[in-house]
Amino acid sequence: MKNSFEVRDPDFERRVRVNFEQQRVMQLIGAKLGTVEPGVVEITVPFREDLTQQDGYIHAGIVTTILDSACGYAAYTLMPADSSVLSVEFKVNLLAPAKGATITARAEVKRSGRTLTVCSADAFADDSLCATMLATMICR
Amino acid sequence: MKNSFEVRDPDFERRVRVNFEQQRVMQLIGAKLGTVEPGVVEITVPFREDLTQQDGYIHAGIVTTILDSACGYAAYTLMPADSSVLSVEFKVNLLAPAKGATITARAEVKRSGRTLTVCSADAFADDSLCATMLATMICR
Amino acid sequence: MKNSFEVRDPDFERRVRVNFEQQRVMQLIGAKLGTVEPGVVEITVPFREDLTQQDGYIHAGIVTTILDSACGYAAYTLMPADSSVLSVEFKVNLLAPAKGATITARAEVKRSGRTLTVCSADAFADDSLCATMLATMICR
Amino acid sequence: MKNSFEVRDPDFERRVRVNFEQQRVMQLIGAKLGTVEPGVVEITVPFREDLTQQDGYIHAGIVTTILDSACGYAAYTLMPADSSVLSVEFKVNLLAPAKGATITARAEVKRSGRTLTVCSADAFADDSLCATMLATMICR
Repeated sequence: MKNSFEVRDPDFERRVRVNFEQQRVMQLIGAKLGTVEPGVVEITVPFREDLTQQDGYIHAGIVTTILDSACGYAAYTLMPADSSVLSVEFKVNLLAPAKGATITARAEVKRSGRTLTVCSADAFADDSLCATMLATMICR
Repeated sequence: MKNSFEVRDPDFERRVRVNFEQQRVMQLIGAKLGTVEPGVVEITVPFREDLTQQDGYIHAGIVTTILDSACGYAAYTLMPADSSVLSVEFKVNLLAPAKGATITARAEVKRSGRTLTVCSADAFADDSLCATMLATMICR
Repeated sequence: MKNSFEVRDPDFERRVRVNFEQQRVMQLIGAKLGTVEPGVVEITVPFREDLTQQDGYIHAGIVTTILDSACGYAAYTLMPADSSVLSVEFKVNLLAPAKGATITARAEVKRSGRTLTVCSADAFADDSLCATMLATMICR
Repeated sequence: MKNSFEVRDPDFERRVRVNFEQQRVMQLIGAKLGTVEPGVVEITVPFREDLTQQDGYIHAGIVTTILDSACGYAAYTLMPADSSVLSVEFKVNLLAPAKGATITARAEVKRSGRTLTVCSADAFADDSLCATMLATMICR
């Protein structure tokens, strides 16, 4: 299904990587951009004590930060060269404590439309599913 | 409606404030705990360039971080003294760019149950509504 | 806040009521359109045994049906005369069993944009809150 | 992943099918229960004009009705024999018009916990994806 996405900008990967560098918060939390393929993006954040909530796990808001950006960039891979992407809304289910050496968010486009793109994303604490997102992105 | 909540732990405010200090990520992003009343909690984060996304606005994940904690603590004000609180899930709608001197999340309990508590929260960029959350919290 | 909405079509109420008559499912479930004001719409469904789930309460899907239509029409009151409205997504929290003589959904526009409108809605079983929705509608 | 679910009640399929018969609304809308496997349930509704919204498509609330029940029963397949299941909350994205001869909801358990179970579900209009749900169910 992933291979069926139409890529409108062959230079999409560079465009995503440049945009990621402009998200200043990613540097603050130490997030790294991994895979960037048509409709699929991964972002990883290392465990750091200054990202934790009261029990010593990564705060749900930080997990959401990389899930949201991964969804936005997954959508952005399929958008035209001169477009910009914004989050309309997302829903997150927290499935297990976000504890481990790294947290990785993997987002996939579920449906790509002209204006709106719907993505789903899972977050893994090391190799264990810890959260899932269903998100809507808009192309401007 | 707010005044009808039953407070099971008269020392709830201190309990919330101690717990907030344990959320290390709040120090990282510069968040401050404001109002703590039965079923109502406010958290504020100042604008800082290292919290921004590609357009220079506060990243949706950071807005979510304070919305989520505000919902969790609003629920926690009504829980017993020896309980702990965890996020089950939340949904966020981004309504306007999060730009301004401060972003404030204000959460209110919508329904308090024995196990699950449902909260709604709004985020304001200065005085302007910029995001809204509907969340489910669990008492352990 | 409700009174601050800009009405672009003075004939919005008639437009909403005509559209409601075209939702055939509303007749199937016995739903009635109540209040239609700028940014606010109410829909009521009577208790009927053929709308119930396994415990004898109104099925969450039927509660969602009137919440969704109430949100759509609340958004539609503020849209231009020649527009149409579609649901993009919604989230529902079930707060209490939907039991009583009637279930009423009351929707309000939370933010009205050119393309997207965000609404919140509560459902009441008689006078008791039983469900809440946060929804995104699109203007076509 | 599906095969890794622990089945606590070997008679789960009969239990689900008996419960489905008690959901009176399923008869009203003509829904049929299909696949019932550990952590997976399908429900189908035929196109009928009395289930439509203003454009002649199946109303999002009816699609939600079968998505919600499919999620509930997928969770219920993994619950103990003497338990009951209730919806806590769900979020639905409408991806395409629900038009076709049948609408089928297919739900899978994403994470099964002692109290809460998280499910995802897709709805297909004939063979085409038209909606997706992310839901939380509770075991009582």
